Amino acid sequence: MNNMIVAALVGIVALGFAVSKALMIQKVDAGTPRMAEIAGYIHDGAMAFLIREYKTLAMFVGVLFVVLSLLINLPTAIAFLVGAILSAAAGFFGMQVATKANVRTAHAAQVGGMNKALSVAFSGGAVMGMSVVGLGLLGVSMIFYIYVGDNATVETMTTAASQIAGFGLGASSIALFGRVGGGIFTKAADVGADLVGKIEAGIPEDDPRNPAVIADNVGDNVGDVAGMGADLFESYVGSIIAAITLGIVTYGADVQMAEKAVVFPLLLAAAGILSAIIGTLFVRGDEGKDPQRSLDTGTAVSAVLVVIASYFLSNSLLGSSAPFFAIVTGLIVGLLIAKITEYYTSTAYSPVHGIARESQTGASTTIISGLAVGMASTALPIIVLAAGILIAFHFQGLYGIALAAVGMLSTAGMTIAVDAYGPIADNAGGIAEMCEMPKEVRKITDQLDAVGNTTAAIGKGFAIGSAALTALALFSSYIAAVELQTGKPLIILLTNPDVIAGLLIGGMLPFLFSAITMQAVGKAANSMIEEVRRQFRDIPGIMEGTTVPEYNRCVDISTAAALREMILPGLIAVIAPIVMGVFVGPEALGGMLAGALVCGVLMAIFMANAGGAWDNAKKYIEEGNYEGKGSDAHKAAVIGDTVGDPFKDTSGPSINILIKLMTIVALVFVPLFL
Amino acid sequence: MNNMIVAALVGIVALGFAVSKALMIQKVDAGTPRMAEIAGYIHDGAMAFLIREYKTLAMFVGVLFVVLSLLINLPTAIAFLVGAILSAAAGFFGMQVATKANVRTAHAAQVGGMNKALSVAFSGGAVMGMSVVGLGLLGVSMIFYIYVGDNATVETMTTAASQIAGFGLGASSIALFGRVGGGIFTKAADVGADLVGKIEAGIPEDDPRNPAVIADNVGDNVGDVAGMGADLFESYVGSIIAAITLGIVTYGADVQMAEKAVVFPLLLAAAGILSAIIGTLFVRGDEGKDPQRSLDTGTAVSAVLVVIASYFLSNSLLGSSAPFFAIVTGLIVGLLIAKITEYYTSTAYSPVHGIARESQTGASTTIISGLAVGMASTALPIIVLAAGILIAFHFQGLYGIALAAVGMLSTAGMTIAVDAYGPIADNAGGIAEMCEMPKEVRKITDQLDAVGNTTAAIGKGFAIGSAALTALALFSSYIAAVELQTGKPLIILLTNPDVIAGLLIGGMLPFLFSAITMQAVGKAANSMIEEVRRQFRDIPGIMEGTTVPEYNRCVDISTAAALREMILPGLIAVIAPIVMGVFVGPEALGGMLAGALVCGVLMAIFMANAGGAWDNAKKYIEEGNYEGKGSDAHKAAVIGDTVGDPFKDTSGPSINILIKLMTIVALVFVPLFL
Repeated sequence: MNNMIVAALVGIVALGFAVSKALMIQKVDAGTPRMAEIAGYIHDGAMAFLIREYKTLAMFVGVLFVVLSLLINLPTAIAFLVGAILSAAAGFFGMQVATKANVRTAHAAQVGGMNKALSVAFSGGAVMGMSVVGLGLLGVSMIFYIYVGDNATVETMTTAASQIAGFGLGASSIALFGRVGGGIFTKAADVGADLVGKIEAGIPEDDPRNPAVIADNVGDNVGDVAGMGADLFESYVGSIIAAITLGIVTYGADVQMAEKAVVFPLLLAAAGILSAIIGTLFVRGDEGKDPQRSLDTGTAVSAVLVVIASYFLSNSLLGSSAPFFAIVTGLIVGLLIAKITEYYTSTAYSPVHGIARESQTGASTTIISGLAVGMASTALPIIVLAAGILIAFHFQGLYGIALAAVGMLSTAGMTIAVDAYGPIADNAGGIAEMCEMPKEVRKITDQLDAVGNTTAAIGKGFAIGSAALTALALFSSYIAAVELQTGKPLIILLTNPDVIAGLLIGGMLPFLFSAITMQAVGKAANSMIEEVRRQFRDIPGIMEGTTVPEYNRCVDISTAAALREMILPGLIAVIAPIVMGVFVGPEALGGMLAGALVCGVLMAIFMANAGGAWDNAKKYIEEGNYEGKGSDAHKAAVIGDTVGDPFKDTSGPSINILIKLMTIVALVFVPLFL
Repeated sequence: MNNMIVAALVGIVALGFAVSKALMIQKVDAGTPRMAEIAGYIHDGAMAFLIREYKTLAMFVGVLFVVLSLLINLPTAIAFLVGAILSAAAGFFGMQVATKANVRTAHAAQVGGMNKALSVAFSGGAVMGMSVVGLGLLGVSMIFYIYVGDNATVETMTTAASQIAGFGLGASSIALFGRVGGGIFTKAADVGADLVGKIEAGIPEDDPRNPAVIADNVGDNVGDVAGMGADLFESYVGSIIAAITLGIVTYGADVQMAEKAVVFPLLLAAAGILSAIIGTLFVRGDEGKDPQRSLDTGTAVSAVLVVIASYFLSNSLLGSSAPFFAIVTGLIVGLLIAKITEYYTSTAYSPVHGIARESQTGASTTIISGLAVGMASTALPIIVLAAGILIAFHFQGLYGIALAAVGMLSTAGMTIAVDAYGPIADNAGGIAEMCEMPKEVRKITDQLDAVGNTTAAIGKGFAIGSAALTALALFSSYIAAVELQTGKPLIILLTNPDVIAGLLIGGMLPFLFSAITMQAVGKAANSMIEEVRRQFRDIPGIMEGTTVPEYNRCVDISTAAALREMILPGLIAVIAPIVMGVFVGPEALGGMLAGALVCGVLMAIFMANAGGAWDNAKKYIEEGNYEGKGSDAHKAAVIGDTVGDPFKDTSGPSINILIKLMTIVALVFVPLFL
């Protein structure tokens, strides 16, 4: 179990790295008082949202803690609490730094140019990335170490594995509420700012006279930094927990091998953290170097390093190359899904061109072709995923599927850094606009944002692929847990009508969930639209720039709406599996999880890619195609983009978490169903 | 086996009834020469499409016949051929009569008023309905009777049941191509007529100057009469075949009971036919009687009669009320799904009002709210369906699930009559418009069309519910077939990665299929738009009414596009299960069928209801809400309606067939997978 301590120490190293990056950012000059003021609004709004969100979630976490203590056991409840707190802590810390890095990126762009700005923005993202993986690995390895105690037998490890699922539940709960709440916040603010500010009042994007402008910039942080971080935190720990459980199941006959199988994913994650740290060192603001190449190099270095490390770990610890091949399978699946995603959503390829072309005949053809592209785009990723499942299983059984997921997520420190750096650059651009900084500053931040998007697409491919594999591994863990606790096999036959009923209802949940979250965005956006209209109407001097709009009212509205609307979908995800398991039985619940997995993955890909394709069809027209900006085709494309917003930024990403959360709820509550 | 003869005789009675109705329609006056001319265009266009479609399908059927003869066995191949031919024959005969009834309905409305017109239009629909159930029951019972021969043992019945699956395959193939081809034809013509004629040229609906007007009216017949008829023909025979197979499996230990279990669904269907015939007698054009009440009474009478008959049949033949309860469960499921569908898509309830309200803020909110309504509308039908499966299984096992489907479809003769009567009334309105008949004629046909819509909604609920139950019963038949032919159980465990891979790929197919069919509609519509524009531009005198447009060119274009675009989705549906079964195995294929079933049912409900809700949101605004016709809200709602067209009329209904066809392909090709 000493390897557990090694893993925990690497987690601490990641946190140390995050802190050092944070201190470095703190030292960078934040620019003029005006810049500090604007950045202060964003920072305060983001933190206010986060604190109110955490207060709401504290009640939920408190209730679930009591339920778990009473119905399951105290160690599971404590693991749950720690998981929730660490996920929240990662979000809190990452957000603190991201909302400081934005203004410093703007200032760095002004005084130091592109590469200096890249360095600051990427460091901000790296803080989020390293916080997530550091706290994730530290938490899982320490709890498992403590729960197993001095005497590592198959029994103590099995018990600890079932209890540590509570940690995953804590992480998943925060992730789901964070993604849904953040997604609603950011889209409500976005729509409010655009529809009333840009279209009705005719003022440009990021104009300080727009009452919703601060909420819009807060939204980027709340959705794309904190929400995304919580999402990947739970994928990360979920895949490790599934691998631990399945490792014990696979090697349970031999305690020494079982211990190694448990340690392996933790050490793999540790190797991934070190690889990611080394990777980030390659993302530097060297003058004369293309920032895209910096990011690509960093990502490639960390991936290559973790592949090499996993080969040696696999052979030295488990005495076989088979786990290594399972891991590589996972990485290839992630890369292929990313490439396919890029094909369907990038301005460079025919699907997006097709949507742009169809926009010439009006909004209805834009919508139909975008929906068709999104639906068609599910085919190849699903085939790749299915093949990956069969290959990973071929090499290392169910354990191999979990390892493929751990492998995909091992360099999450780097992936999240690239993901979180985009909104920081975006925010920097907003601040530059609001503070009337020179045009070059905005140009630099726009370029940085664009550079990040390509690399971030790879991260999205990994997020979808790893979510599916993690959910599948957790599903297998659920079955193993039922079998362990009843002592007989759980036979989930597709010929059992209970299973079919479960499959149908499970498949329906992603549809219902998407409907609820899309409607929530609509409702929240309407409140925002009314508030922005009210301020323009009732507060004199806004349009002349002599009165400052009531920014915080808009932030409040988005916050209140997000917190109100995230409750129902969150509760459905937690309660549905429990109800099914208790009232119909563990077989029906197995069917439900499988149904949710299949339809969830499909809906997530469909919605994310349709949204991405619409977004880029609009951009493609704005590049001057089909008569460019302001043409009828452009107007139609804007409608497509607006439909795509809740698709790709609220409903789609939330479903990834939904399927994992449902599975982990099933796993934790197994004792109730027997 | 004498009961088989009884069933076949009832089938012949239905055909006799259809012929008598057809002769009656033939005797009705067709009006002025101008009316006969216009109706002639429609009739010729519809028949030309059907003949060209059947020619294309003949190649497909021929190839598959040879494949089946060589790889499976000759009786299956012959059953396949007969199934395909009878389905085509029902479509051909129904269409012949429907395209004669339309003009006679218009004339009857002029000379005899509402009730006379109702009588003619409904008789036209009844011909289609009775042809479908008559040929379906006659075909299944005669082939089974011949294949079993004089010596009815469990073995001969089992063999005959596996061979008669070929009949279902023939029916399903024609249905899928018919639905997809018809759906593409009708929407391409619709969009072409509307977009260029109504919007660009500014001429009213059904104006004879519009080159696409005949194609549009042909489309109503091709899609809503022939396509719908083929769809229900295959549901009807599919459910009977599944019940026969599962009856033998359930009672196989006792040859006498097995024989009764085989005969039971056939006699139930026979009772349904007689009930439907009696029901149609209540739909009469009595002066002073509300036509809605006529249709409702007819539908209710046939439903009540079949329930009573099934009670006696159940007790006398199978010696238990349990099959009766399974049948009633099916009927209740169908009714509940119909009511839920009505709630989500009718102008009377809040979901449609919500879409109309959101239309005030533009097309993007119309689309988002419509998609959300469609997705949310899956929840209750799925819960009802899942409960129905559990209850039917509780009463009578897997056989009960098949019986529930047979029960739902037993009065299909009536359901189809009501469904097919709508497009006849719609066509009559078109003819009235083109022949400049008095305004009252159009008013009567519009009212008849509206009256039919409500009753038809019930039919749609039954179509979705029965498709799901039939697919599930066929799926169980597939498993039983594999077990019979290998002599060992087929264990489709959700823990088997092959099954999971199959589940994912099967789930993906309805998404891919929808994408292809939606894009096909787009492509076909674009060709039509160009042709209509060309005629307006190049043929002088069209707008002045001095030159007759080249109607047949538009019909040709829709026909060619429909035939070209139906090939790919059709082939995917047939080939995918064979590839999966041969290359990965029967377990993976089981997973694939389950995945397609779950995602298919969900996508079918989502798309049908979203499309219906958009359609009615537009109508609700046209009733004067939110500033009515011509307002910005109305423009947004029109965009929603256009998006909804391929949803509800092409992709959605085709998926119902897709899931059944895939399952029946698996059932027929079982010997290849072993």
